[in-house]
Amino acid sequence: MTRPSHDTPAGILAGLELVELSAFIAAPLAGLSLAQMGADVIRIDQSGGGLDATRWPLSREGVSLYWQGLNKGKRSVQLDLRREEGQRHARELIRQTGMVVTNRPDTAWLDYESLRQDRKDLIMLAIRGTHDNRGAIDYTIQARTGLPFLTGQATGESPVNQMLPAWDMVCGLLAASGLLAAERRRRETGKGSLIRLSLEDCALWMLSNLGMLAEAEIGEEPRRANGNDVFGAFGCDFGTGDGRRVMVAALSNRQWRALTDATGTAEKARHMARALDADLDTDAGRWQARDGLKLLLAPWFAGRDYAEVAETLDRHRVLWGPYQTIRDLVTSDRACSPENPIFARVDQPGAGEYLTSAIPLDFGGERDPGTRRAPVQGADTASVLAQFCTDAADV
Amino acid sequence: MTRPSHDTPAGILAGLELVELSAFIAAPLAGLSLAQMGADVIRIDQSGGGLDATRWPLSREGVSLYWQGLNKGKRSVQLDLRREEGQRHARELIRQTGMVVTNRPDTAWLDYESLRQDRKDLIMLAIRGTHDNRGAIDYTIQARTGLPFLTGQATGESPVNQMLPAWDMVCGLLAASGLLAAERRRRETGKGSLIRLSLEDCALWMLSNLGMLAEAEIGEEPRRANGNDVFGAFGCDFGTGDGRRVMVAALSNRQWRALTDATGTAEKARHMARALDADLDTDAGRWQARDGLKLLLAPWFAGRDYAEVAETLDRHRVLWGPYQTIRDLVTSDRACSPENPIFARVDQPGAGEYLTSAIPLDFGGERDPGTRRAPVQGADTASVLAQFCTDAADV
Repeated sequence: MTRPSHDTPAGILAGLELVELSAFIAAPLAGLSLAQMGADVIRIDQSGGGLDATRWPLSREGVSLYWQGLNKGKRSVQLDLRREEGQRHARELIRQTGMVVTNRPDTAWLDYESLRQDRKDLIMLAIRGTHDNRGAIDYTIQARTGLPFLTGQATGESPVNQMLPAWDMVCGLLAASGLLAAERRRRETGKGSLIRLSLEDCALWMLSNLGMLAEAEIGEEPRRANGNDVFGAFGCDFGTGDGRRVMVAALSNRQWRALTDATGTAEKARHMARALDADLDTDAGRWQARDGLKLLLAPWFAGRDYAEVAETLDRHRVLWGPYQTIRDLVTSDRACSPENPIFARVDQPGAGEYLTSAIPLDFGGERDPGTRRAPVQGADTASVLAQFCTDAADV
Repeated sequence: MTRPSHDTPAGILAGLELVELSAFIAAPLAGLSLAQMGADVIRIDQSGGGLDATRWPLSREGVSLYWQGLNKGKRSVQLDLRREEGQRHARELIRQTGMVVTNRPDTAWLDYESLRQDRKDLIMLAIRGTHDNRGAIDYTIQARTGLPFLTGQATGESPVNQMLPAWDMVCGLLAASGLLAAERRRRETGKGSLIRLSLEDCALWMLSNLGMLAEAEIGEEPRRANGNDVFGAFGCDFGTGDGRRVMVAALSNRQWRALTDATGTAEKARHMARALDADLDTDAGRWQARDGLKLLLAPWFAGRDYAEVAETLDRHRVLWGPYQTIRDLVTSDRACSPENPIFARVDQPGAGEYLTSAIPLDFGGERDPGTRRAPVQGADTASVLAQFCTDAADV
């Protein structure tokens, strides 16, 4: 397989090799991030396909679009990991590449200390459910974080799950950074690393980062569900005269002025501020007065069609976005089309041509088309074994 | 400032230096990730505090817990960036560290080509709203992704925003990887990089990764809001006899057997499968039959108190988690306590002692306590200028 050179943007990680023994989102996302920056990532699955081989969503032909999405730019190998020979081949790939990421449970043949016998400076990143090695997935952790009670108009009895697997995403992306950090140290000191990372810790870390754990521990009163409002600032949604909805926000005085200028409500807002004892020159004041401010602004939106709303808000550089379905996004939003350099239409195996994204990091120049293409599951088995394993003739 | 050595886990990025000209979440999160792995990260804000200096949530004393959470382990410098002297000092810090991340708008003094005159191999990562440089924040992009129509029981008229700024999180974490990748290339080739990254592209990339763009483009029928159900598998929430709720999931045959064994519903499930023509040995079949399966399972949960439900599910290794508030999480969940090695109680400036997280990447050994502490805003101005700027005496 020809890899991009250092001089092409996708070749930023040229020369980096990684074995991935993975399923679902977090571990594959780590490999995807590195593969789309030009690393040679070899994903190994059980012969016949891993647990996520047919994970939804599917194409009409039954091919997993989920699997394809998370494995673009990689090579795909299938081995019988229940037998000694498959394990031996996997270990040989790990030894030669010197780097492995996995979310598989601890087993003897994939144990760091044992793998390190073969390669002293091995870097291994092992993802687990919790720091004390209990089973967990994004959705079970989400329930424990309290976020479903803060979503929508949730009440104590009806938590609302967020549908995006945010913790898997954080875990996979942080794993990619962890692997690069460990490789940097290996280059400096020759030392390998065993890196452990749990999905649950990723969630707790991010709640700490956003100040939400501290707020719950030492804050004045517990945060409540605030519907679609942006917490602690002015941000909410409005309906237009022709039945569309838009999300509008102001996180600075400039943005707030833009919004009141666009809607001609500056003077009314000043009166509302006096009526509600709020200082509209601060986020806190705009949050405090938000229900009053919505009363002023809503008629402006309701009195205009979407096209006029959009044109006026854009002209005044208001921070806003239209609500649209994901189908609208794909079919009619220019950001989600080949006009955006991250996208190209790619013929994916068994699914046909569809819009596919390169990594959004733009290092300058053209994206390498190879980093957008998903492999056929298992299709690289023979060539990878021929490249790495001396006894590959028996496969 | 004493930095950890290579031999301590937090020193994995020892020797890496980064200047951050940032506000809000994405750019600070990139710096936070590197700082908590031992890089020396210097955040520069406008004198008197940047746009997010008092962003909610706040402590009772009015200190921003949000700012503290996103800036742990960094040094904090304030300069008057509207004046030539402040810009000159910022440029000198960038020149000497050789690496900068920012989400500030393009301006002449912070222009890559201009900065590169001072330092040929500079690495700069610039975050913007969209690839074509339009304003956007997480919430306005979220509306455009279509996710609010897929959350909870949303209908076409009532989109439900996810309250977690997932795109900011993706953007910041991907930025950290991008900086490490560029630094790797610089070590190999001596070349610097200008890296551009947009918040909107991060969202579109992740929708591509999860197969959701492809599903919307070439799938059979549009995805609908599915309440708290895990799409394409068996996962949903149940109420217990004493008024608690739990999230339960099965993403493999083993996990499904664990759930039916724990609840004694294996035989009933087989009858339900026949009644609904579903193959319960597949995710697709369990998804298809989910409403019937819930009818079987709900009475088991409703007939028991939470304590018995928890004990039984754990004993059978069912994948599950309790719904709890974020306050419950902080006060009574052992994972969110100093029993978990990522956490310690830290006395944060002006806010008092609260539970604070190190980075979840565990490279072995103890976490460096310094990576959990937030600086006083601006407190490192004099010492940093004395270290980096020869004319610092005039500050």
